[in-house]
Amino acid sequence: MTHTVRHKQKLLARVKRIRGQVEAIERALEAEAGCEKVMHLIAGARGAIAGLMSEVIEDHVRTHLVDAARHPNALNGEAAEQLLDVVRTYLR
Amino acid sequence: MTHTVRHKQKLLARVKRIRGQVEAIERALEAEAGCEKVMHLIAGARGAIAGLMSEVIEDHVRTHLVDAARHPNALNGEAAEQLLDVVRTYLR
Amino acid sequence: MTHTVRHKQKLLARVKRIRGQVEAIERALEAEAGCEKVMHLIAGARGAIAGLMSEVIEDHVRTHLVDAARHPNALNGEAAEQLLDVVRTYLR
Amino acid sequence: MTHTVRHKQKLLARVKRIRGQVEAIERALEAEAGCEKVMHLIAGARGAIAGLMSEVIEDHVRTHLVDAARHPNALNGEAAEQLLDVVRTYLR
Repeated sequence: MTHTVRHKQKLLARVKRIRGQVEAIERALEAEAGCEKVMHLIAGARGAIAGLMSEVIEDHVRTHLVDAARHPNALNGEAAEQLLDVVRTYLR
Repeated sequence: MTHTVRHKQKLLARVKRIRGQVEAIERALEAEAGCEKVMHLIAGARGAIAGLMSEVIEDHVRTHLVDAARHPNALNGEAAEQLLDVVRTYLR
Repeated sequence: MTHTVRHKQKLLARVKRIRGQVEAIERALEAEAGCEKVMHLIAGARGAIAGLMSEVIEDHVRTHLVDAARHPNALNGEAAEQLLDVVRTYLR
Repeated sequence: MTHTVRHKQKLLARVKRIRGQVEAIERALEAEAGCEKVMHLIAGARGAIAGLMSEVIEDHVRTHLVDAARHPNALNGEAAEQLLDVVRTYLR
């Protein structure tokens, strides 16, 4: 449970950071910043969203693919890691 | 100039929509919504950011690659469209 | 077992098609085809490789995350589908 | 002209390498290699195709967006580099 609460706080901190990045894009557009700066800020927000998705997918794979209470040890941890490795290369 | 102001408003409207989407992710995490819902919201925000990037890149290609005041008609419009077509397939 | 053999044939057919697409890129470059044609062929090969990866990942999720012989019914089919839906949107 | 021929050879060398990578995927499937190995080989081929696309797009931007014979110096080199930087982050 503590783990879940801590995990939720970690995800929320990521989302708040992303909101800050989106607000920075808004300010840059308002201030008519150059394309380069705007593209750079958007690329940063995109990367942060990919990182958030990656974390939620990891959570999903580790906790929802198998109900560990009913099927302890059924999830093949090594196969799950291989999957997450591939997913992460696509989420950059 | 009017064009630029209108364009700026369009980009700002997109960013505000993205901020709304990021806030919806935050609320979903706060409310401990299911992974599926959270992943769906993140995918939506990611798509919206890709759409914004696509629009900024188009703007950049059409207005900054060639200084049209000094070099009128120098930009090959067809080649620019081919480039943007390819970029868009990568920005989905 | 028959299923596996049929599945292997399906994957092999995909890879052979990709090889044909890569050879078409080679011929286009040899013939000094225009950039547009070359970019189009490369985008096609990229899409086909993404489709192959998607299929291998599906296979991996469905058959390797849980050893069905030792843990029958342990894999949550709905959670697995949700995961694959997300992965597919990233593999386009 | 020499430049073009050398460039063509460079692109062809990339494509031949990709063909070799696709053939390695084929052999791995024939040999019933594990999912991990197959996914790794596919990820490698995908990265190589992205690299090829990146190079063709660079070529396209540098040589086709502006007809340098008719409009010398019309292409804004800095703006072109900014564009290619963004495109490359999406082509990984």
